[in-house]
Amino acid sequence: MHTVLSSRTREVRIGPDQPFCIIGERINPTGRKAFAAALREGDLSEILKDVDDQVAGGAHVLDVNMGVPLTDEADLLARAVTLVQEHSNLPVCIDSSLVEALEAGLAAYEGKALVNSVTCEEDRLDRVLPMVKEHSAAIICLVNDETGIPQTADERLDVCARLVDIVHGRYEIPLEDIVIDPLAMTVGADPQAVVVTLETISRIRDTYGLNMTLGASNTSFGLPGRHALNAAFLVAASYAGLTSAIMDARTVQTVDACRAADLLLGRDEWGTEWIAAHRRTLAATA
Amino acid sequence: MHTVLSSRTREVRIGPDQPFCIIGERINPTGRKAFAAALREGDLSEILKDVDDQVAGGAHVLDVNMGVPLTDEADLLARAVTLVQEHSNLPVCIDSSLVEALEAGLAAYEGKALVNSVTCEEDRLDRVLPMVKEHSAAIICLVNDETGIPQTADERLDVCARLVDIVHGRYEIPLEDIVIDPLAMTVGADPQAVVVTLETISRIRDTYGLNMTLGASNTSFGLPGRHALNAAFLVAASYAGLTSAIMDARTVQTVDACRAADLLLGRDEWGTEWIAAHRRTLAATA
Repeated sequence: MHTVLSSRTREVRIGPDQPFCIIGERINPTGRKAFAAALREGDLSEILKDVDDQVAGGAHVLDVNMGVPLTDEADLLARAVTLVQEHSNLPVCIDSSLVEALEAGLAAYEGKALVNSVTCEEDRLDRVLPMVKEHSAAIICLVNDETGIPQTADERLDVCARLVDIVHGRYEIPLEDIVIDPLAMTVGADPQAVVVTLETISRIRDTYGLNMTLGASNTSFGLPGRHALNAAFLVAASYAGLTSAIMDARTVQTVDACRAADLLLGRDEWGTEWIAAHRRTLAATA
Repeated sequence: MHTVLSSRTREVRIGPDQPFCIIGERINPTGRKAFAAALREGDLSEILKDVDDQVAGGAHVLDVNMGVPLTDEADLLARAVTLVQEHSNLPVCIDSSLVEALEAGLAAYEGKALVNSVTCEEDRLDRVLPMVKEHSAAIICLVNDETGIPQTADERLDVCARLVDIVHGRYEIPLEDIVIDPLAMTVGADPQAVVVTLETISRIRDTYGLNMTLGASNTSFGLPGRHALNAAFLVAASYAGLTSAIMDARTVQTVDACRAADLLLGRDEWGTEWIAAHRRTLAATA
């Protein structure tokens, strides 16, 4: 199954037979005081550098989040989406916790966007899904609900089943436009956290064949050597059936891990992409 | 199931609930002209540096191979095994294509060794297995026979079944002393090579629960960025059920990948080993 995203001029396919889809996550003011301050004053120019960095690192899709407190986030996100589209031809993942901001972002976007995100909570689903449907966008659905993060793969599969019922069954959004987030939790807080996530991924693949994404760096939170841990996690998750991740494309080790998994798992025949990426790196560092 | 190896003073367990077992592969003259020449003249001193390097890198077991043309390999291997045991307390993997050399190595070894290796070829099995049994050693069994490398997981499972029949059924060597090599082939020569190896690994785990090992660097032969590819392969293979690998412990990226997989897959609770290794690296580079 392919989730097809597009900008005005470019199409990107997420799917198990496609290269692992890297959703560049840096266009986000969270934890970046200077960037947040600039955005608050209406200066969006830093976004261009972030876009360039993510594109140079190998991102296939750009996550755009404008969660700046004390601003009109809807207006800011619409302007950011427009700016990103003027500057890059990569499809955009429109990311906000505010429904109004998602709506403004979708209205500003030209193409087929990915919307980030909903959980299995009726209120938000009832507000977000009609606009996803209206814009023929794709939607990231997290397998948690108002009761919190399910601790077992069984429970996450149950939430996934309810999400499919609602998103596909009730709102008639095509299955290929549903991208499940199986929830990557911190292994430093729970030794079984990644085992549960990997089991959830492989069972969603086997049961539904849906595309999946997650925040790749969550698992290593609080631990040393995070790039190596994230790289290992992405390889295992890709092998289990994860087809994309939200990650910082500036980190060579994790991007390399996704490409290595593609080559090893038969999605990059004869290493065409792997060798090309290696040559670009050599050229950039020469 | 645990494969228990030992030196005079130390025990190492290979098993799915144990840290991934790194069998350090550097104590081997293949492709090393100066080392081979020194060995030919009876100078074994370079071995000590190789042992130190593998131990420092995190090896749990030391593979010792003395395949130097135009020497008495049996005598050389026996002397090397003795020297390694005087210098290190890690268990040894006695590695030779010559039955006489394996025999001399086993005779010189004190403890429970791993023998590297047999294929499913009756001649060699009939010569090697009695001595493995006599010394209560463990044995690496490759899933190929006189007809060559099986191309599919089905065929490799068939060979594995025949190996179990012979090694366990006929020679009464305990199942826990059988370490299967599922065969890691070059992905640059066959895009499905690793997919087949991973399927073989997970099916042997599910069918027999046997421990497994392989030459970790084979898959990336001829490709650029080999360390990143080998690291990714080791993570996927560890997740599939591989419990050890023959690899060069000097390569931080691949050793890190094995340790990262241990942490992510719940075999290093609270990251105790991961954090300790990270501190050692920091101390060594400070």
